[in-house]
Amino acid sequence: MNKKPLILVTNDDGITAPGIRTLIKVMNTIGDVVVVAPDSPQSGMGHAITVNSTLHVKKEHIDDGPQIEYSTSGTPADCVKLAKHEILDRIPDICVSGINHGANSSINVLYSGTMSAAIEAGIEGIPAIGFSLCDYSWDANFKAVEPYISKIVKAVLNHGMPKDVVLNVNIPNLEAKSIKGVKICRQAKGNWEEEFDKRQNPHGKAYYWLTGKYVMDDNGEDNDEWALKNGYVSVVPTQFDLTAHHCMTELNSWNLNE
Amino acid sequence: MNKKPLILVTNDDGITAPGIRTLIKVMNTIGDVVVVAPDSPQSGMGHAITVNSTLHVKKEHIDDGPQIEYSTSGTPADCVKLAKHEILDRIPDICVSGINHGANSSINVLYSGTMSAAIEAGIEGIPAIGFSLCDYSWDANFKAVEPYISKIVKAVLNHGMPKDVVLNVNIPNLEAKSIKGVKICRQAKGNWEEEFDKRQNPHGKAYYWLTGKYVMDDNGEDNDEWALKNGYVSVVPTQFDLTAHHCMTELNSWNLNE
Repeated sequence: MNKKPLILVTNDDGITAPGIRTLIKVMNTIGDVVVVAPDSPQSGMGHAITVNSTLHVKKEHIDDGPQIEYSTSGTPADCVKLAKHEILDRIPDICVSGINHGANSSINVLYSGTMSAAIEAGIEGIPAIGFSLCDYSWDANFKAVEPYISKIVKAVLNHGMPKDVVLNVNIPNLEAKSIKGVKICRQAKGNWEEEFDKRQNPHGKAYYWLTGKYVMDDNGEDNDEWALKNGYVSVVPTQFDLTAHHCMTELNSWNLNE
Repeated sequence: MNKKPLILVTNDDGITAPGIRTLIKVMNTIGDVVVVAPDSPQSGMGHAITVNSTLHVKKEHIDDGPQIEYSTSGTPADCVKLAKHEILDRIPDICVSGINHGANSSINVLYSGTMSAAIEAGIEGIPAIGFSLCDYSWDANFKAVEPYISKIVKAVLNHGMPKDVVLNVNIPNLEAKSIKGVKICRQAKGNWEEEFDKRQNPHGKAYYWLTGKYVMDDNGEDNDEWALKNGYVSVVPTQFDLTAHHCMTELNSWNLNE
């Protein structure tokens, strides 16, 4: 590549989150950075888009640096759409989303705004990666993750991304010296066992907080949960063709036209 | 099955939408129906869940009939979680979502609250189907779809659903006599070309409406868009393991640990 790559940076924790500030810092060492990120936290937004209300875009200056920054009132997926169609004057060479404060491994890929931004970019033909650190705290230590992010982004820029695929990268919450390396994985099978916390408001009306614990249903050593528990950075190639091709014959045998 | 199946009904257009009222009517002929649906429209919510605010549940009586109904302040995925963990006293035999006012074929499966409710049920081990009619209007004519819905639901109850799969069913907006039958399909490849409609508010500040047109990138005759255009009901087996297994070798060849 002769000229510097154009890098679109977004996230779901909002433009001021320490995770995206770290990602911007690392991306500034690789290419020309444009940030288009939500103006407030959007965790758990999945692949939501804003169809029934209006969207606002605001130029921002948050940290000193060469990056150009915009915040939007939209979801992570909206940010990618706005960047591509309204803000950028050419298609970015890569879109990176994160670094999320908290894991997006296993089934969490479906609830994750971080990954939905990456998937939205992938749908639009932009190579894309979502990065998450397995530490939910706002003051998480992102130091150990920087070399891994740099290496994976450069690999995608060098090799090109497989067609119709994005990467879901999760990084264990460990000191740099304790991280064993990178593992290409499949998405672990698991689900959340919800435990709604039922309360009463001062007027006696019931309300709920969604809470719960993650339950693994997967003993493999080739999945992302195993990799993270064993000290590896997990990289899951993630597709947006959801067709369960292996079920076609079975469904056809139901003879729904008889 | 000796006793009547327990059927959970939800949607993303809200509990009063004509689409869900039709679905409830058809389900009442098949089993015991419990409705848990959003109290307001949730289109485009994707797989959003409510983690940063509280959830409310309200018993409802909207139409006469044997069904039991609740509205919630949550997203479609929240409705399924609340139903399973707080409202129902046993796991439902099937969860049906819709009938959505508008198509959820092709890539729209990712943005669809209707399909996210079905996928959420699938993750929790409940056989699940999302139904959509290719007509966005509130006064769409759901008459032609009723026999197809009944047939597909009964087939799932009889055969059981393949593991870790849900069905994405779209129905063309045609008179009953013009519908040619049911086709098992794959998800068509396509994307939305956004055209943001940029406007100014009375105070001179810019804002955007998200709009756009769907662009097909798929000439196959085995995909859901082809089926719908050619007068068939499309049934896409849909999975929530997003791993692109075919890319493992390629990604391993990048040697990210060197």
